[in-house]
Amino acid sequence: MSKEIGLTVKKSEDFSEWYTQVVLKAELADYAPVKGFMVLRPYGYAIWERIREYFDYRITKLGHKNAYFPALIPESLLRKEAEHFKGFVPEVFWVTQAGNDTIGERLAIRPTSETIVYASYSKWVRSWRDLPLLLNTWNSVMRAEIKGTKPFLRTSEFLWQEGHTVHATKEEADQEVMTILTIYEDLVTKELAIPALKGTKTEREKFVGALYTTTLETLMPDGKALQMGTSHNLGQNFSKPFEITYLGKDGQSHFAWQTSWGVSWRLIGAVIMMHGDDKGLVLPPRLAPIQVVIVPIYYSEADKKKVFEKANRINRLLNRKKIRVHFDDREGYTPGWKFNEWELKGVPLRLEIGPKDVASQTVTLARRDIIKKAVVTDSKISKEIADLLEEIQKNMLRKAEEYLEKHILTANDYSAFKKEIEAGGFLRANWCGDTSCEASIKEETGADIRLLPLSEEKVFANCIYCGKEGKKVVYFARAY
Amino acid sequence: MSKEIGLTVKKSEDFSEWYTQVVLKAELADYAPVKGFMVLRPYGYAIWERIREYFDYRITKLGHKNAYFPALIPESLLRKEAEHFKGFVPEVFWVTQAGNDTIGERLAIRPTSETIVYASYSKWVRSWRDLPLLLNTWNSVMRAEIKGTKPFLRTSEFLWQEGHTVHATKEEADQEVMTILTIYEDLVTKELAIPALKGTKTEREKFVGALYTTTLETLMPDGKALQMGTSHNLGQNFSKPFEITYLGKDGQSHFAWQTSWGVSWRLIGAVIMMHGDDKGLVLPPRLAPIQVVIVPIYYSEADKKKVFEKANRINRLLNRKKIRVHFDDREGYTPGWKFNEWELKGVPLRLEIGPKDVASQTVTLARRDIIKKAVVTDSKISKEIADLLEEIQKNMLRKAEEYLEKHILTANDYSAFKKEIEAGGFLRANWCGDTSCEASIKEETGADIRLLPLSEEKVFANCIYCGKEGKKVVYFARAY
Repeated sequence: MSKEIGLTVKKSEDFSEWYTQVVLKAELADYAPVKGFMVLRPYGYAIWERIREYFDYRITKLGHKNAYFPALIPESLLRKEAEHFKGFVPEVFWVTQAGNDTIGERLAIRPTSETIVYASYSKWVRSWRDLPLLLNTWNSVMRAEIKGTKPFLRTSEFLWQEGHTVHATKEEADQEVMTILTIYEDLVTKELAIPALKGTKTEREKFVGALYTTTLETLMPDGKALQMGTSHNLGQNFSKPFEITYLGKDGQSHFAWQTSWGVSWRLIGAVIMMHGDDKGLVLPPRLAPIQVVIVPIYYSEADKKKVFEKANRINRLLNRKKIRVHFDDREGYTPGWKFNEWELKGVPLRLEIGPKDVASQTVTLARRDIIKKAVVTDSKISKEIADLLEEIQKNMLRKAEEYLEKHILTANDYSAFKKEIEAGGFLRANWCGDTSCEASIKEETGADIRLLPLSEEKVFANCIYCGKEGKKVVYFARAY
Repeated sequence: MSKEIGLTVKKSEDFSEWYTQVVLKAELADYAPVKGFMVLRPYGYAIWERIREYFDYRITKLGHKNAYFPALIPESLLRKEAEHFKGFVPEVFWVTQAGNDTIGERLAIRPTSETIVYASYSKWVRSWRDLPLLLNTWNSVMRAEIKGTKPFLRTSEFLWQEGHTVHATKEEADQEVMTILTIYEDLVTKELAIPALKGTKTEREKFVGALYTTTLETLMPDGKALQMGTSHNLGQNFSKPFEITYLGKDGQSHFAWQTSWGVSWRLIGAVIMMHGDDKGLVLPPRLAPIQVVIVPIYYSEADKKKVFEKANRINRLLNRKKIRVHFDDREGYTPGWKFNEWELKGVPLRLEIGPKDVASQTVTLARRDIIKKAVVTDSKISKEIADLLEEIQKNMLRKAEEYLEKHILTANDYSAFKKEIEAGGFLRANWCGDTSCEASIKEETGADIRLLPLSEEKVFANCIYCGKEGKKVVYFARAY
């Protein structure tokens, strides 16, 4: 593999450049003609489809259904919930012309769909029988990014899912918020092999228009926090302006309670950063579009025939066992070149077959997560591979967990805080609950309160900033 | 079921109003706040997902892969192929502002993605090794509709798939065009139970920017033609302005050959119109999100227990057999009300279980496509249902085929043509090949040439309009 194709920088040397090279060279995504926009290439799309499949399966089992809502929202509709509008308007792309005509009222390309979805909900929800209403939509949304953009992490258009549910009571909405947060947690830990902290956002950081926001946060290798997904209880903040009311069993009309929640292709960015190494991407087996790549090794036509025959047989076998396998039968590339390419693309297991393997009725398996090869007897291949994939998945999560644990530190005073925040990681600290302390810390250090932990922790000191009574233990970090 | 919920108009009396009522009352779609836009509700979305699943399966087997391209296209990029730009510009939604800023260059919301996709292809395609490049994308596109809009058939935003492929030679591109057209034909005949004619478009009617366009056309019950899908050979019309070149095995640089093709949610509109009746939607089993609905019938708590126990057992059984079954266990609705609702929603088979069925170890099956009930012994249920679903699918296609055949007429002179076109249907006629004849006929009768049949038919008279030598047999119709 030529220099041009492989990575030319180490992860530890220039993290940002390394990240960009992995994105481009592993063919996950590419830049688009408009700045801040991105093309999701087939390999990246296949990863996104795995995420979609898992999440769809989980929410469908609980009665959620998919739907599609228009991409354009009239300005007047977007304005209906004042806080929400104020929060999003700096980032909205506006459509003002159709063909040669100027449009009477500007149309926003959805930055999120609350307002357009709830215009429908106000028509659809009539009685308690219509509740809960549990819909989800897979789409793209647009938010004009002014800060530096970065593929997957900060793009002006991104693919995501957004769920929008309606409930009869606050308690049911509370429960939905937690149900979804737990599914997000399962998604990132079990599928993406990334551990995360669960918590709620402060008033300052919550979703604009929400009653409260819960969040899943993790830490990237550069010490910056990354928000993986959020799940909001919207209270009645939208049901009132949008007049989403239902006739209760009591014969009275009530405003409904609502939730919304989303995860985006940002998750793919998290996987790249968390698990990748100097050779490129490292994909957790459950997420990998290709779990096993078969690379044939031969130096004569006679060998080729034997090797291919065996490779095809194993390919069929693994396919039957529902293992996502790919036989790289391309001509004109050396085995070494192929090894490098599939390592760059993060395939968890490489299965090598050479003439010797044919003779000895074995194959060689090479792991991507650690440098380790094993020779396996033909008869044990599928069992061995299934075990190894599971072992890799566990090992990747374990490593990520160790990293996260090691980078949750405690700060007892503000000068230590300022020093430690430079090194990155989460900083546990006490907070008086005052938004002005939170804002000052952000201004002075670049760190904000990422979350108030879901399982509340015991206050151990005064407010890290003002020195008044500490009311909550919170987690600070600089973030993406 | 109250009047308000059921249809209030017959298909034969007011086809247009009937159509709208089915769309809204079967909860397939709803109007959106912006005129011409539509919400795809969960039931409609589930049908779209079936279409997507089938098509994805077919093209994936042939090596096509999915990707995602940005929704915004800079005006200069859209302008690169002049004909293409001229064709689409009257319908383009333009983004001119981002937040509070005016954007330097207007951005088009994609009306179709050729230009934005080919900007990437010019970077990705280098050598013959990169070909064929076979990508597909599922997205929504926008075209400002000025004529009367209609859910599914004519909306300013619609869901669709668009395929974009690159080949080394014209022959390979020709072949791809036909491969896809054949998959479209399989999709509509085998899944949607709608027969269609295959052909090519005239120069006047082809896709703007294409070398030639192939099309799949069918006839709706009101006698108007509907274009179901198109597959274009783009020739080198885009590869030249976009500079998509590859290094051939001959060591020379060549402009590539390209195809593009698409089907949209319009297919759902075709299914509604083609198969629906005075009770509502009628779905072909292979397309139906719910193939069998179980409706329990009971008048006492004791009966309910027995009936539910049996219903749950059958529900599990059919699930295991991969039949898409739904047990309607809702309280507070009469069986008759449920019957009407599921008929409105077009579920192919209703399975009724009452106390007598429990005693006699039978169930009652009612077909949606024709009025016919059958009592089936418990032990034969899954076999019987599988057979019936197949029979319904076949019967629906047969009926649609009979209708299509009956409405392909031949016109020998223009006065007969003008009379017959009023009655609707396809009119076979001879044509001199002159665009001016084609345009005059369109202006005078509202009918255009829907297609030149793929298997060329023998000319039997002079041009239907000018009386000069007939060069082709073509199919005229008024169309959606």
